[in-house]
Amino acid sequence: MSPQACLVVHGTDRPGIVGAVGTVLRKHDANIVSLDQYSDNPHGGAYFQRTIFGHENLTAVLPAIEESLDEAFADGFQLSFTLRDISVPKRVAIFASKSDHCLLDLLWRQRRGELPITISMVISNHPDLADETRSFGIPFFHVPVARENKSDAEKEQLKLVAGNVDFVVLARYMQILSPDFIDEVAVPIINIHHSFLPAFIGAGPYAKAKARGVKLIGATAHYVTEDLDEGPIIEQDVVRVTHAHTTQDLQLRGADVERAVLSRAVLWHSQDRVIRHGNQTVVFA
Amino acid sequence: MSPQACLVVHGTDRPGIVGAVGTVLRKHDANIVSLDQYSDNPHGGAYFQRTIFGHENLTAVLPAIEESLDEAFADGFQLSFTLRDISVPKRVAIFASKSDHCLLDLLWRQRRGELPITISMVISNHPDLADETRSFGIPFFHVPVARENKSDAEKEQLKLVAGNVDFVVLARYMQILSPDFIDEVAVPIINIHHSFLPAFIGAGPYAKAKARGVKLIGATAHYVTEDLDEGPIIEQDVVRVTHAHTTQDLQLRGADVERAVLSRAVLWHSQDRVIRHGNQTVVFA
Amino acid sequence: MSPQACLVVHGTDRPGIVGAVGTVLRKHDANIVSLDQYSDNPHGGAYFQRTIFGHENLTAVLPAIEESLDEAFADGFQLSFTLRDISVPKRVAIFASKSDHCLLDLLWRQRRGELPITISMVISNHPDLADETRSFGIPFFHVPVARENKSDAEKEQLKLVAGNVDFVVLARYMQILSPDFIDEVAVPIINIHHSFLPAFIGAGPYAKAKARGVKLIGATAHYVTEDLDEGPIIEQDVVRVTHAHTTQDLQLRGADVERAVLSRAVLWHSQDRVIRHGNQTVVFA
Amino acid sequence: MSPQACLVVHGTDRPGIVGAVGTVLRKHDANIVSLDQYSDNPHGGAYFQRTIFGHENLTAVLPAIEESLDEAFADGFQLSFTLRDISVPKRVAIFASKSDHCLLDLLWRQRRGELPITISMVISNHPDLADETRSFGIPFFHVPVARENKSDAEKEQLKLVAGNVDFVVLARYMQILSPDFIDEVAVPIINIHHSFLPAFIGAGPYAKAKARGVKLIGATAHYVTEDLDEGPIIEQDVVRVTHAHTTQDLQLRGADVERAVLSRAVLWHSQDRVIRHGNQTVVFA
Repeated sequence: MSPQACLVVHGTDRPGIVGAVGTVLRKHDANIVSLDQYSDNPHGGAYFQRTIFGHENLTAVLPAIEESLDEAFADGFQLSFTLRDISVPKRVAIFASKSDHCLLDLLWRQRRGELPITISMVISNHPDLADETRSFGIPFFHVPVARENKSDAEKEQLKLVAGNVDFVVLARYMQILSPDFIDEVAVPIINIHHSFLPAFIGAGPYAKAKARGVKLIGATAHYVTEDLDEGPIIEQDVVRVTHAHTTQDLQLRGADVERAVLSRAVLWHSQDRVIRHGNQTVVFA
Repeated sequence: MSPQACLVVHGTDRPGIVGAVGTVLRKHDANIVSLDQYSDNPHGGAYFQRTIFGHENLTAVLPAIEESLDEAFADGFQLSFTLRDISVPKRVAIFASKSDHCLLDLLWRQRRGELPITISMVISNHPDLADETRSFGIPFFHVPVARENKSDAEKEQLKLVAGNVDFVVLARYMQILSPDFIDEVAVPIINIHHSFLPAFIGAGPYAKAKARGVKLIGATAHYVTEDLDEGPIIEQDVVRVTHAHTTQDLQLRGADVERAVLSRAVLWHSQDRVIRHGNQTVVFA
Repeated sequence: MSPQACLVVHGTDRPGIVGAVGTVLRKHDANIVSLDQYSDNPHGGAYFQRTIFGHENLTAVLPAIEESLDEAFADGFQLSFTLRDISVPKRVAIFASKSDHCLLDLLWRQRRGELPITISMVISNHPDLADETRSFGIPFFHVPVARENKSDAEKEQLKLVAGNVDFVVLARYMQILSPDFIDEVAVPIINIHHSFLPAFIGAGPYAKAKARGVKLIGATAHYVTEDLDEGPIIEQDVVRVTHAHTTQDLQLRGADVERAVLSRAVLWHSQDRVIRHGNQTVVFA
Repeated sequence: MSPQACLVVHGTDRPGIVGAVGTVLRKHDANIVSLDQYSDNPHGGAYFQRTIFGHENLTAVLPAIEESLDEAFADGFQLSFTLRDISVPKRVAIFASKSDHCLLDLLWRQRRGELPITISMVISNHPDLADETRSFGIPFFHVPVARENKSDAEKEQLKLVAGNVDFVVLARYMQILSPDFIDEVAVPIINIHHSFLPAFIGAGPYAKAKARGVKLIGATAHYVTEDLDEGPIIEQDVVRVTHAHTTQDLQLRGADVERAVLSRAVLWHSQDRVIRHGNQTVVFA
């Protein structure tokens, strides 16, 4: 198999985009392996395209393809694009607290080859998960966070991740990140919220779900924005519960949904399958 | 098979309830077919029990069993109970507007023998579904509702259902019932809400779901109380959607979930499987 | 919105197909609305592409597009294609017996605008569903089938459908079609089998499922081939059951899965989303 | 909370069983916490009952309750029963080979308190999972199995587990146990099969599923009997796949279903929720 790259095109729809991309790739002898596209309105709506293509000399040809795309899109298109050699895994920092289920699931899946990512580090405000993390050969950094030192803690976190990671995953990290942190880290942050958003926003969703008497509980993976629990949703799922389940039972059942949903979101993000658009996402799953 | 009755016991838990019920039924030669029970705390919590029993001369023996239960529970128990010959189907009035999917599904399931109910009448604020309803041999009453005559309309509805039905089903009925109506009708009212409550309360849930970019949409069947969309939940379910679905697509996919969820709620209610407890339900499904 | 056409391309993969199609469509000022493609091996594997495009004068331009595609593909590609104006609904004959759930679901969905099909006729070996079918304004033909006259019956069926339909749906039709019929009817035939194939092939799958003690029952929609229950699978789904369900309960629960699965298969087929490939299907759902 | 015991009653149905059990428990001041019962025919069919009850001096009173039940059931009932202090976790030996996903999931769930079991040992025909197992503080025994020494290997396995475990779990153990082993180990053996049984019996189910073009893949947890893949089913689940998934993708997706299904089966077995009856199970989940 030839090495492969992923091209993501995002912008305003108009006729000719697929043809233009196809022509550029053909010109450079690249071979389209898969192509997904979506437009919310063919007449000037938002346009999204994800293309995987192969080339025998991928590294050598990528700059030329990039140049040709720049030229092709300069011809009246309103499009931006990213181009990435998919053999280079994305680097991620996982933030955790005391709960291990989401963290362990990502460590396991990465080790078995399910996730095309490099886990560069785990950062936690508690020391509990250090041994477990390091047994996978992953660096663990303990950065305590108290109300009075939160700003210092975030500075330390930023120092650790700056330049070292392509995205951050909050694996049941129990601190709210400040707008400053979100701004300065300048990479996507994926969070797992333990409810079917927008139901049960904020703290204690399982207790709220129990009180409301719902028959399904869920989990939601989303990108973090300054508005708590309001960022673009990547993936959601639910599991059935009954009156006989206590709040603690909901937590146990919910943990399985949380780790499943988070791992799918991390997989899709790492494969450039998720394109943000306003407060929504297009997911070519 | 002997004819069967359903006994529902609800009250405060304490030792000996199952034994007391079993002893009464044995004394009258009744045969327990199935028994479900649940207690949220064996030491004085809320207690729920549903028992199906058979007896060759059921009609004759029911008054005596009722008397024996009264006596047994007088011995220090804090319990109430209902006793019902299950060969007598519950009578229901279905309220609908213009959407046919929930109404048709109930009419059809009742006809094929899936629902142990008698559909006594369909009441609608629009005439559209008259022919369809009457083709099933069910009376259809058109009671128009306008802002200025809502109170009169509800009086007419009450006159139609008073004494004639054991519960009411709102099958995508697009009017909000007044607290007075809910109070005077004095039978349980089941509603289907077209979202996964408590997400997207109120009008236009599919448009709200589209705007929020959720990856699952749902439906919720609940008992109607004076607090709109806040009554005890009976059943919920969801279906997966993607960025490519329009609000209209969500409505079409949602319609399938709505009719499935509502039909399960109606089935379980008609079989005395749902016990209300505060703002929650115990469902022996 | 401009009128739209669906182009399905199927053949042997090699570089340049997307570019070639895009160039042809651009040349004729057609606007790609959506494009799905799949290849099981970019180096000479099987290639599948479904493209929806719009054009202001679609009817006028289709022959020219067809000609251009013929020319483009003549240049060393091993591809065949179909091109269809999607505003023309496919015509279908539904075969049924006594069970109404699958038939009614299709009639309902077509009436509410969910299925882009014209139901040209219903053919049944029993008269039971005549009134129900005709109340939807659809012709119903009763063609009795007995062991000794099966060949004659099939001839009568062939006469009814010949030239009048684009595909046939077996909506719980309880007769096995002969290889001759399948050959002569010369249009795709979709069947719904009441099990999760390949489990419980043949007659009485619910009884077999009960005997085996499975915890899920399913349904499978597939294209009919000469090998009973072995044709290419279009869609499958399951529903949870327990030890407490009788074989009759399985039938009732299964009926809901059957109609849901069949309606999805009919929808996808009518939208050219299903491409047969050997004994498998590619479904761009 | 008082300590609790689990009483499982199994035999022939006839009137009075619930009453008899309730009376015995009341007599000894035991408090029924939950009671599930099922009968496949109230007139002489098979009867199943699972009762959890609490008592302040449970250990002291259990022998007396056992004696009273013996007496009560001697009065014309055809019933057997088991009585168990649920504070004593069941002891299990897990058999594994090279795949870690099912083993790790059980080790991890046990550690976080989800499974009321003691994992006494892990036995494997490969040494690969030794370190991982021992990091949980669980003994790991490597018992190589070759065609020529299989009988010796099974003798060694029997020596390890004899008297030490209450059940055995095959967590993707890739050897077939001989009828002699099954007979001599004399405790229940739970296996996870990587298909939706009875589809794809035997080896290589994912490759078979890919070849057949199914749209769902599944996993089945069942008790092991001498008939390969034919034992009583405890739990099953499925996950959706598409034409685009390779056999390897099916394996990855399937692994998630396998570990989920196996963990539910182990949980329910360890809580005495599963009662075998011929080649089926009753599961009070």
